[in-house]
Amino acid sequence: MAKEVTKRAENYSQWYSDLVVKADLAEQSAVRGCMVIKPYGYAIWEKMQGVLDGMFKETGAKNAYFPLFIPKSFFSREAEHVAGFAKECAVVTHHRLMNNPDGPGIVVDPEARLEEELIVRPTSETIIWSTYKNWIKSWRDLPVLCNQWCNVVRWEMRTRPFLRTTEFLWQEGHTAHATAEEAEEKAWEMVNVYAKFARECMSLPVIVGHKSPNERFAGALDTLTIEAMMQDGKALQSGTSHFLGQNFAKSFDVKFADSEGNLQYVWATSWGVSTRLMGALIMAHGDDCGLVLPPALAPIQVVMVPIYKTPEERSAIIEKMEEVKKGLLAGGHSVEIDDRDTLRPGFKFAEWELKGVPVRLAIGPRDLEGGTVEVHRRDTMEKQTVPLESLVGAIGSLLDDIQRNIYAKALAFRDSNVEKCDDWEEFKEKIGTGKFLLCHWDGTAETEQKIKDETKATIRCIPVDSYVCEEEGRDIYSGKPSPRRVVFGIAY
Amino acid sequence: MAKEVTKRAENYSQWYSDLVVKADLAEQSAVRGCMVIKPYGYAIWEKMQGVLDGMFKETGAKNAYFPLFIPKSFFSREAEHVAGFAKECAVVTHHRLMNNPDGPGIVVDPEARLEEELIVRPTSETIIWSTYKNWIKSWRDLPVLCNQWCNVVRWEMRTRPFLRTTEFLWQEGHTAHATAEEAEEKAWEMVNVYAKFARECMSLPVIVGHKSPNERFAGALDTLTIEAMMQDGKALQSGTSHFLGQNFAKSFDVKFADSEGNLQYVWATSWGVSTRLMGALIMAHGDDCGLVLPPALAPIQVVMVPIYKTPEERSAIIEKMEEVKKGLLAGGHSVEIDDRDTLRPGFKFAEWELKGVPVRLAIGPRDLEGGTVEVHRRDTMEKQTVPLESLVGAIGSLLDDIQRNIYAKALAFRDSNVEKCDDWEEFKEKIGTGKFLLCHWDGTAETEQKIKDETKATIRCIPVDSYVCEEEGRDIYSGKPSPRRVVFGIAY
Repeated sequence: MAKEVTKRAENYSQWYSDLVVKADLAEQSAVRGCMVIKPYGYAIWEKMQGVLDGMFKETGAKNAYFPLFIPKSFFSREAEHVAGFAKECAVVTHHRLMNNPDGPGIVVDPEARLEEELIVRPTSETIIWSTYKNWIKSWRDLPVLCNQWCNVVRWEMRTRPFLRTTEFLWQEGHTAHATAEEAEEKAWEMVNVYAKFARECMSLPVIVGHKSPNERFAGALDTLTIEAMMQDGKALQSGTSHFLGQNFAKSFDVKFADSEGNLQYVWATSWGVSTRLMGALIMAHGDDCGLVLPPALAPIQVVMVPIYKTPEERSAIIEKMEEVKKGLLAGGHSVEIDDRDTLRPGFKFAEWELKGVPVRLAIGPRDLEGGTVEVHRRDTMEKQTVPLESLVGAIGSLLDDIQRNIYAKALAFRDSNVEKCDDWEEFKEKIGTGKFLLCHWDGTAETEQKIKDETKATIRCIPVDSYVCEEEGRDIYSGKPSPRRVVFGIAY
Repeated sequence: MAKEVTKRAENYSQWYSDLVVKADLAEQSAVRGCMVIKPYGYAIWEKMQGVLDGMFKETGAKNAYFPLFIPKSFFSREAEHVAGFAKECAVVTHHRLMNNPDGPGIVVDPEARLEEELIVRPTSETIIWSTYKNWIKSWRDLPVLCNQWCNVVRWEMRTRPFLRTTEFLWQEGHTAHATAEEAEEKAWEMVNVYAKFARECMSLPVIVGHKSPNERFAGALDTLTIEAMMQDGKALQSGTSHFLGQNFAKSFDVKFADSEGNLQYVWATSWGVSTRLMGALIMAHGDDCGLVLPPALAPIQVVMVPIYKTPEERSAIIEKMEEVKKGLLAGGHSVEIDDRDTLRPGFKFAEWELKGVPVRLAIGPRDLEGGTVEVHRRDTMEKQTVPLESLVGAIGSLLDDIQRNIYAKALAFRDSNVEKCDDWEEFKEKIGTGKFLLCHWDGTAETEQKIKDETKATIRCIPVDSYVCEEEGRDIYSGKPSPRRVVFGIAY
């Protein structure tokens, strides 16, 4: 094979790192904790953005852009928010460099110190609500439904490409409403958009639910989440939608006159997904040969590799491939012909498998004679021979089938690794073995914290659409009464 | 009228500021020199991005993402680049905030000082070429054609929305090539992409040419530019494409093995356009009633305003409008029905004129009876009555006509304000009156600087496709021999 990838069973974490680098998705940059997203990785992110952006716009959201920098004092305004976000962050203190007066190189000009430090946004609630104050005066100005695609920075101590990086790309939606009900509905609408995107485009089964108070966004009254299981059984929080109540409206004094002329504080939501979804995509579907991309997000859905010995064979096959390519493009599929002459077909096969291209077509001299093509699907690694005249239709069905099959496989894997658990000893034994455990919980932050301290497990969510289990029971740890089971897991 | 806009003749600069704010394009943020791009403004930028991104991809460029932060030492590597870009910039010195031990609020944690300061990118040549070093080993790895859509920060002393802001959005392409010829060709290809985009989508006539050495990008061997004339006769540099030679390859030691195995430094280009284009769009076409948007970039191409007295009339007209809307959407046009019931039609007309929507349709009870619609075009403010059955075709032609007409108008304006000038006294008299002057220049930086010091005029470009004037003459200032005329103007 072209580039060796560590096997999952051997070292899952190394397998992930290998895939990121060897499939040309991303690499470490010269700046601590910041990654370079390479063209192939970025093309997947662009596909995600395209689909999500369309879905957001269907909900009425409009894109806008708010400043990268946030005045330090803004973080002190919302009490919980400051604790959650104003700790590890990039602080701009100066606005000028100068030639080093004492030697070579350049130094920070001590005279160019800012009066107030600026924080590189870790999230934009504060700067956006300081702006909304000017936009919202009357009930007629509501709702405000803005989304922003941008970069954010959180000074993480331990970073891993896509999963946790100092700088990452994301979208953050920020909405303002006249009533609590409307805001809560919006928070639900958006988490369901995320769930639909994850399931239909990423082929990623996710559990929708509430976060427990411990795991809530700093400043939120309720955080809704989509939680996915990776192939090591760990949980990846893949998107969140927050009902913020009137917290930010109060901190930034954003009031509207209702239809009777009474001044009221505005109700808020915010919701976001990030390049972390790239990590989910890799870890949920990849195998020991490389990435497995769902067709809906694959930058290249079909790759064609010519098999030849002589230059004459080569040109005849490539000519045929150009014809096939036209048909596939007209059918709405993205196609590439790998006509590199210096590499053997086996090398090319391995490379495209590593990159997760859903379908590979090979045409050799015998295919040319017989009017056939060899069709290989990445998800199952199965091959079949298809007559050229029915190829376009066959590829369309095959891509649909791959999209469904990847989802079904991930769902079956998750289902087989979710268990009810009612015994604390059993919990401690099983939680580290790659399971989600459905357990009773007494609803206190204290118990959740103790469970976390002893096992590293956290409540991934209080599920609302999968594994819902509204039955009386007793907390797995404290033994206190509990009205329902929640999902425990070890998280990335 | 809904919102008063200062007249251009009265105060052009105030007119511009009024338009930006009152047409809901952007506003000042709480952070010095940084703007908030509002949804309507951002929608225009998204249209620009969409068209440009497609054009870039047709040239083979692929999008990628590089870090926001650049280690300070990187700026010292390329001697000219450091002088040009490492001066006024945002410097990150710390990575943590803490509660103020001496009182309320939060302060920078003095223990969290970075070993090496990070600069918020003013442009990304250095971080990208430090990355390309790992990507490029052999001639087979070339060319590398990357583009990045991102935010950049330059600590400007005087800022104006879109034209010059501390943070702005842009794209920056960075290409690597095996030969000087190929890199130069790429620089030309990209400036021509910009010119085509400006002319065809923005309806903006631009002059393509070389920058004089004084006005070159810091680190470039040649800078190509598109220069536009605003309605006050000032020049706006609207996009640049740089041939960087081997400067960055040498600074970051990026070599490739050619087909004979010899190690050679790589040749480079970079090219960019920014949200400054929004400023160009506003200033080139707007009038005293507001924005005039070319249909190719208008978020809303057609707005419909119902004219009614009774609720019955209203619902009958809006029903008809929904039908018309469907037809127009099917024809590929973006349409909005302004069904707000609390505002008079005259108010709505003024608001949509302010926002530059190319075509406005009004339907009243008499139109409904007669099967007609009143069609108003924003560029000329002319009205006509069109039978409903031929509306879709008529709108399509009208939008094309508006797109062409806006261009023609701007071109005629520019042509009438470009003059040859061979007399220094005349130059001094005319250059401040809103003209581009075609003058002879002796080719020295010294003369250019003296002219700038005396008149604020700079060489906007050495034109290659408009106003080309390859004739012998004498420098307007120094009297020394000159082989061609160049374009002088006062720039934004």
